[in-house]
Amino acid sequence: MSAAVPFRDPARTDSTALREHVAALLDSRRRGYALPGAFFCDAALYAAELELIFGRHWLFVASEPEIPEGGDYRTFDIGPYPIFVLRRDDGSIVAFHNTCRHRGTRILQQPAGVVGSNLVCPYHRWVYDETGRLIGCGASELSAPMEGLRLKSVHVKRLAGLIFVCLAAEPPDDFPAMAAQMEPYLLPHAVARTRVAKQIDLIEHGNWKLTIENNRECFHCAGHPELSRSLFDFFGDIQEDALSPQERAAYASFQTARKAAIAGWERAGIPWQLIEKLHGRPTGFRTDRLVLNGAGESMTMDTRRACARLLGNFTDARLGSLHFHVQPNAWFHFLADHIVTFATLPLDAGRTLVRTTWLVDAAAQEGRDYDLENLTRIWVETNKQDATLVEEAHRGASSPAYEPGPLVGSEFMVGMFHSWYEERLRAALNL
Amino acid sequence: MSAAVPFRDPARTDSTALREHVAALLDSRRRGYALPGAFFCDAALYAAELELIFGRHWLFVASEPEIPEGGDYRTFDIGPYPIFVLRRDDGSIVAFHNTCRHRGTRILQQPAGVVGSNLVCPYHRWVYDETGRLIGCGASELSAPMEGLRLKSVHVKRLAGLIFVCLAAEPPDDFPAMAAQMEPYLLPHAVARTRVAKQIDLIEHGNWKLTIENNRECFHCAGHPELSRSLFDFFGDIQEDALSPQERAAYASFQTARKAAIAGWERAGIPWQLIEKLHGRPTGFRTDRLVLNGAGESMTMDTRRACARLLGNFTDARLGSLHFHVQPNAWFHFLADHIVTFATLPLDAGRTLVRTTWLVDAAAQEGRDYDLENLTRIWVETNKQDATLVEEAHRGASSPAYEPGPLVGSEFMVGMFHSWYEERLRAALNL
Amino acid sequence: MSAAVPFRDPARTDSTALREHVAALLDSRRRGYALPGAFFCDAALYAAELELIFGRHWLFVASEPEIPEGGDYRTFDIGPYPIFVLRRDDGSIVAFHNTCRHRGTRILQQPAGVVGSNLVCPYHRWVYDETGRLIGCGASELSAPMEGLRLKSVHVKRLAGLIFVCLAAEPPDDFPAMAAQMEPYLLPHAVARTRVAKQIDLIEHGNWKLTIENNRECFHCAGHPELSRSLFDFFGDIQEDALSPQERAAYASFQTARKAAIAGWERAGIPWQLIEKLHGRPTGFRTDRLVLNGAGESMTMDTRRACARLLGNFTDARLGSLHFHVQPNAWFHFLADHIVTFATLPLDAGRTLVRTTWLVDAAAQEGRDYDLENLTRIWVETNKQDATLVEEAHRGASSPAYEPGPLVGSEFMVGMFHSWYEERLRAALNL
Repeated sequence: MSAAVPFRDPARTDSTALREHVAALLDSRRRGYALPGAFFCDAALYAAELELIFGRHWLFVASEPEIPEGGDYRTFDIGPYPIFVLRRDDGSIVAFHNTCRHRGTRILQQPAGVVGSNLVCPYHRWVYDETGRLIGCGASELSAPMEGLRLKSVHVKRLAGLIFVCLAAEPPDDFPAMAAQMEPYLLPHAVARTRVAKQIDLIEHGNWKLTIENNRECFHCAGHPELSRSLFDFFGDIQEDALSPQERAAYASFQTARKAAIAGWERAGIPWQLIEKLHGRPTGFRTDRLVLNGAGESMTMDTRRACARLLGNFTDARLGSLHFHVQPNAWFHFLADHIVTFATLPLDAGRTLVRTTWLVDAAAQEGRDYDLENLTRIWVETNKQDATLVEEAHRGASSPAYEPGPLVGSEFMVGMFHSWYEERLRAALNL
Repeated sequence: MSAAVPFRDPARTDSTALREHVAALLDSRRRGYALPGAFFCDAALYAAELELIFGRHWLFVASEPEIPEGGDYRTFDIGPYPIFVLRRDDGSIVAFHNTCRHRGTRILQQPAGVVGSNLVCPYHRWVYDETGRLIGCGASELSAPMEGLRLKSVHVKRLAGLIFVCLAAEPPDDFPAMAAQMEPYLLPHAVARTRVAKQIDLIEHGNWKLTIENNRECFHCAGHPELSRSLFDFFGDIQEDALSPQERAAYASFQTARKAAIAGWERAGIPWQLIEKLHGRPTGFRTDRLVLNGAGESMTMDTRRACARLLGNFTDARLGSLHFHVQPNAWFHFLADHIVTFATLPLDAGRTLVRTTWLVDAAAQEGRDYDLENLTRIWVETNKQDATLVEEAHRGASSPAYEPGPLVGSEFMVGMFHSWYEERLRAALNL
Repeated sequence: MSAAVPFRDPARTDSTALREHVAALLDSRRRGYALPGAFFCDAALYAAELELIFGRHWLFVASEPEIPEGGDYRTFDIGPYPIFVLRRDDGSIVAFHNTCRHRGTRILQQPAGVVGSNLVCPYHRWVYDETGRLIGCGASELSAPMEGLRLKSVHVKRLAGLIFVCLAAEPPDDFPAMAAQMEPYLLPHAVARTRVAKQIDLIEHGNWKLTIENNRECFHCAGHPELSRSLFDFFGDIQEDALSPQERAAYASFQTARKAAIAGWERAGIPWQLIEKLHGRPTGFRTDRLVLNGAGESMTMDTRRACARLLGNFTDARLGSLHFHVQPNAWFHFLADHIVTFATLPLDAGRTLVRTTWLVDAAAQEGRDYDLENLTRIWVETNKQDATLVEEAHRGASSPAYEPGPLVGSEFMVGMFHSWYEERLRAALNL
């Protein structure tokens, strides 16, 4: 046999060697600095992340309008785990591992579809009911009792129309607390009364953490001319002394717009106070209602609403963007007229799927109420630009000559993401 | 250097670590159940299989009509081993490793072709005769004697027109016993008097054992509407008590057809008794003359002969299908009017080549005696369906959440394949 | 987690295990024979080569006419290291690691281009001056002093218009000695007064050492009908006794041509004595002025000049070809009317980039002074032929059945390359 192949599985998360390896990597990280290059390339760390980060945390996978009717399903690959999410006829939502209990075949094979009242594996016609119970196996007797052959379930949580799953046997228990805090922010946008206007899958050629880092700062937003039409890039504590005269003028204009926006939010009776719980808990999250520039209505080229029909019971479009992100894999913009959801999943250590979905009011009609190109343009362009940035960061940071540099003040959320990431790995491995 | 790379070769089959690794995997298997997921993904096991299964057993690679004339050759990649099979001018068939004894270059570079009386390496014109002897090297003197630089040979066996090779220094010695049993079944179909009507290579995106398992049971045949036109899916011992009323009717019709078929086989003087030696020996094989449905003549959409000219000296087309398979890599359908051969070779742990070849009487003419689409349709469609099933089984069984389920009664040959597979690895590694 | 992944980095060049592994491979090599197959496939050896061969020796990457003006740059990937080479406004040439000191992003993202007086990372607009000094970071304060955040430089050497780089902190110190010997040979061809007529990147599907070996002998040149129009394949000491009558006639004709050529070289006042320092030093090199067949002017189908304008101050086109090669990655043909440069870089253990560049006098105009197809044909065809030979050598030598064969006399330079390669690895690892 020619090339060497390993055959012990040192990546098993209960192995001492893996714990030592991950501990050494985490110890090599310097707070306030970018991550070392091994964090983007190391095969064992990536395998550990799949198991300990993506296998044990709440992941946003879809919003309810993506499976509106009983029988509607969507399939996902969470690292090496194929799963599916299904709406049952009673409206409830369940998720299962997408592997037949016979010989393992994927039962649902399309990205999305509709099933009848039962699930039938296309290989040998094993039949499961909506609860995952095996009710038919085409054989008079089995060497194992059918009761023991239920589909393995995956935990599901719903938050104001957003669907989260967790593969762990015992998922983090802090989801309800997040939900209690977030529902007042999210419910007015009435996700459940929307429909999908467009969904685009983009593969970024970089490690998933670079995708997240890129989303956690707007220090790079000068590279997003379309996004910058509506988005101010002032986040966190701004030190006015440090601003250039030009920036100071922009900041003053931002402050004025923000005051007006807050008055509007108060009038509309929607919460807007920042919540920042990005680390110190398994389900790190953050929300911030962002004031928008110009007309202040939406994330469009002209900063005006993209859809004539507003969401929920909104009457005023000038609500800015409710930014929400949930670690490790999602972020959202909730506007008065539409919602954009972003779900990321790693494909391998150097490739990350970014799925962007635009939701509009269920009654809105393309052509009449909105122009699809106008609705989607900002994020179509911004995503492309981000994909290039992430790819080039990955290529450069993969160099053995790369040495992590210092984060600047406006990258504070990148630092918080790093803290959360380190906390979660240390907790999972008892480091 | 960025990503870690191993540089010891633990996959060496003489290493203690590999033996322990394979033993642990085999011990993890439960009889009567599907194989654990690691059997389809584990890189070291795959490397061991290439060496111990594909490197040490008889493999079917082609039938004689594929190299009908002296000088005709075909090249193959048996895992990492490039080889070629050549018909010599005296009609004999030989096989060699396709690596020049100078600097290793592949001497014959096309999938199939014709050579003159000598073999010339295209790199530096080293010349070998038909026996593999180096007879010219373009240099006045070599630091090694030319006698020691013969092409390395590969063992070849012929069975009624089928060509098998074995890479091992000492191939399994049970081939002659199989040949003695099989020749009475195969010779009447006169492979040597056929020619290739069509050959199609298909890559299945699954582990080679899933390809074999899929071929070893017809429990899934409801997913093959074209194949089901002619093929009854009753194999092995049928428990009539366990059949549904509908199945019982089909079984009765099968029994009637089978009685008539046996009478025909007896009239034609061709053997039809089941031989099942799938395990307990290196060269596991099985043959069974299958009765066909409908007109009972051939594996076609209308169950009638595809080729007007029958094979050999046959006068009656109603001979069903002589099913023959040989572990680890081949199966065959011998009909009265044509033959279909299937040879599989692993490309990597998750991809398998399936080469299907249709043979018809050497004198048959396309258009006059047969319609190519009619001849090939059943297996073209069935192969495509099987490729999807194998791919989906591979994707699902690769999930860490996959747990092998119980085999049902009609999957008894899958179980026999597993037994053979385990026996062969244990024998090779002295486990 | 499914497949095993390693997570120690045994390929670290300071590890005892790697040293033992490489030592065992080197010990397995037999002098005067081809390299064992593991040299082309072994992942750890390949990683060691990237670090110890390509990371620590002088590499030819481009010639000066490829970056003629201040601000012109080209980017390269030396294994995992992205770098760029830049001509500054003062005409000097510098090279840097192409990774931003902030978060590692590649600063220059195109294969070639032009920058202004400063270099701006497209991610967060960090600004570097031409010396690599960080002069702007878009933030009022950094947790690290900007002085410490210079771009990491890469060593550059120029030799008569050829640009070499070295990634090592302390590059081999024998470059000036090579330059002193080579300048008299190269300067008359006036590289700096040429321009690029054509550049073609070709990926050979073989290990980089097979690419080099292929270039180090003309024993295979019968497979290059176009090249053989102009190139005699007599190299090194020819034993006339061993020649066939036909070869003896060709050799006599070669001797006659060579005598005439030497007279011409003497008249032109250009050096032509063989220099062969292929091993025994870090920067192995060799030069030889080759007499050409036929009209003896150039490497063209009709052996006449391809470009009407001769290089430098040449008045006579009958100067043959000055062949120059530098280990580990380059070779050149300097003719009277044009120059062909070849730079190779490994892409992975089984793929090698070969970049071929044709240079003509800066004042030459396509269509008037030269026909591009005529200029490039010989090497376009020869490169394609070589790519096939390298691929087939790689495929065959990757077989576990491959056994290295004896080199013949005319492969003496292959043996010298092997010696250099072994010396360099032993020196780097203190073996």
